[in-house]
Amino acid sequence: MARKSAPEAAERIDQEARAVYHRIGRGRKPQMKLPIRALSNVKYLPRPGYFQLGGKSKLRTLTVNTVKTFAQSLKMLAMSKELIRTRRHSTKREAYYQAYNWGEAAFAAQEESDTVMDDVEALLAVNRERLHFRADEHGGEVAGELIVIDRDRRTRRAVEIDCTRFGSGAYSVPTVVEDLRFRTGAKFVLAVETKGMFERLVEENFCGEQHCILVSMGGVPSRACRRFIRRLSDERKIPVYVFTDGDPYGYFNIYRTLKVGSGNAAHLNEFLCVPRARFIGVTPADIVEYKLPTHPLKDVDKKRAMDAMKNDPFLRHHKPWQKAIRQMLEMGVRVEQQALAKHGLAYVAKTYLPRKLKDPEKFLP
Amino acid sequence: MARKSAPEAAERIDQEARAVYHRIGRGRKPQMKLPIRALSNVKYLPRPGYFQLGGKSKLRTLTVNTVKTFAQSLKMLAMSKELIRTRRHSTKREAYYQAYNWGEAAFAAQEESDTVMDDVEALLAVNRERLHFRADEHGGEVAGELIVIDRDRRTRRAVEIDCTRFGSGAYSVPTVVEDLRFRTGAKFVLAVETKGMFERLVEENFCGEQHCILVSMGGVPSRACRRFIRRLSDERKIPVYVFTDGDPYGYFNIYRTLKVGSGNAAHLNEFLCVPRARFIGVTPADIVEYKLPTHPLKDVDKKRAMDAMKNDPFLRHHKPWQKAIRQMLEMGVRVEQQALAKHGLAYVAKTYLPRKLKDPEKFLP
Repeated sequence: MARKSAPEAAERIDQEARAVYHRIGRGRKPQMKLPIRALSNVKYLPRPGYFQLGGKSKLRTLTVNTVKTFAQSLKMLAMSKELIRTRRHSTKREAYYQAYNWGEAAFAAQEESDTVMDDVEALLAVNRERLHFRADEHGGEVAGELIVIDRDRRTRRAVEIDCTRFGSGAYSVPTVVEDLRFRTGAKFVLAVETKGMFERLVEENFCGEQHCILVSMGGVPSRACRRFIRRLSDERKIPVYVFTDGDPYGYFNIYRTLKVGSGNAAHLNEFLCVPRARFIGVTPADIVEYKLPTHPLKDVDKKRAMDAMKNDPFLRHHKPWQKAIRQMLEMGVRVEQQALAKHGLAYVAKTYLPRKLKDPEKFLP
Repeated sequence: MARKSAPEAAERIDQEARAVYHRIGRGRKPQMKLPIRALSNVKYLPRPGYFQLGGKSKLRTLTVNTVKTFAQSLKMLAMSKELIRTRRHSTKREAYYQAYNWGEAAFAAQEESDTVMDDVEALLAVNRERLHFRADEHGGEVAGELIVIDRDRRTRRAVEIDCTRFGSGAYSVPTVVEDLRFRTGAKFVLAVETKGMFERLVEENFCGEQHCILVSMGGVPSRACRRFIRRLSDERKIPVYVFTDGDPYGYFNIYRTLKVGSGNAAHLNEFLCVPRARFIGVTPADIVEYKLPTHPLKDVDKKRAMDAMKNDPFLRHHKPWQKAIRQMLEMGVRVEQQALAKHGLAYVAKTYLPRKLKDPEKFLP
């Protein structure tokens, strides 16, 4: 399915452009219908498994007031089509600078061009990467039992990237992963919060022993990292387990974002979220079971957790998460992944994770 | 030389431990001599090419007041020796948690253990990575004409990592690079500030056309990234060109840190800095020559630049840099790498960099 992503996007651009063209031909004002991208227009759907945009939308009609934005949106569509044709990708910053030559439609600042790019993405209901725009961000690192199939830029021939063959290093995921293909016999993907834990597990040969793929998210996963895990999990139907610090940041900013997406980018969750993800740890219950050193919760952590208990549709849907967060608040402490090092460096790879992996049904949803 | 790095570090640990042991044996108070790590004890040496520690040091003698820190330093030395023996590496966080079991010598907070680690590093005059401690940070990404030789963690056999074969992705540098070896026919290393520019150059097949190695620093280069470039440039004697935004952050925080190091880590510059680095762009002169779009300098940029003109030993040593900074201040503007996209996405790879590369003598020192 991803193989035909680029033509699909080009087709959507043509559709929108044709609609504008025909309205003008019939002497009517051209329009664009944009979904409203805000928390108020978001609902959590347990079945597909992500935050989804509701039906609210706004109509952008060509008027004296909207003429500049309207022109910019059309120019942005044209830029995307040219990128697809020339097989290039443009960062948001590069798009902004390319638009320097648009005369009166040039942007005054990059925030303006970013907003138009978001609009275009929502208008077409296609993720930005398929329009050949990319973020200037880190895509995550990968090691373990996976072969990524990409293309050589010059020859266009397939290159096979064997992620078992990086020694102490790793495969760095590009910001656009739409055209990658995968071959793997791995039993699961383990997505970890920090590079430090990633290297710990590489050093302990965890991937070889457990037949898995290891991904370092480097904090909150970037779009590219989320999309990479999503495509991998879709195409190969492998479970995804998430391993973060035991604190509200790990539970909500990292895990929940990866799994169901976030409110303000709801038009993208469909493409970026990983409904198959489950939370392996560190849970509040682990603190007791594994006698882990902790730190007191900060006030901001407590507030964050209590807000989530009240308002977060994801949390409200999942009883086991409510129980975990209540336990965290009662104990008043948070725990770091690295706290397992109290029992020795190898403990996480030789004892903690293998013991948990025996019982995936107990993972938090 | 790097091949025997680990035994060397273990030997230094033994020396220090023996000295303490013998003083105690002779009924005298044990001591450790630590260089003072502060800007006031730093000088810029143009010949080796980095900020270097001056001769000031403090003597830590075992007393009632220092007994805890003294014990912690010795325990930290022992931890390092055990890591070297078991071929493991520990992050700073993991070190802190392992020390939970030190009884009365346990650390109250990670800042304490970090400080002791810095002390131990300075005491031994060996960079932390060779003591098998590592930072939890991103090591940079690499593409282009380079084969990295690492070891398979399980079999200990050599693995060859061919950085031309990653398609749109890249090789992610591990945090410890001490034992890597390199094979390359590349003419130079190009270290770029952003992942976006890195991917632009990969997409344009810049490495293939210019026979070079591309490194994405992702902002201010991490220790691992600096050490990687340094080792590559030392072992293979290839020039390193640095390509950042044209602003004080790019000039000082990124370029100068990479080349000569920083004041507060002066005991490490010897191992981390890249004296062979030269600055290819974007320079203030480029703004005029390539008609680039700019942004006004912020007040903080101006202050930074004026402070540097007055106090930075590196800048004061290099006339061409003084001229460049003066020009920047007179024009009152900064410029981003991506501004070159005004002339088309391929311009940076097909015109700007090739034109500059004809004249490396003109690069800023």
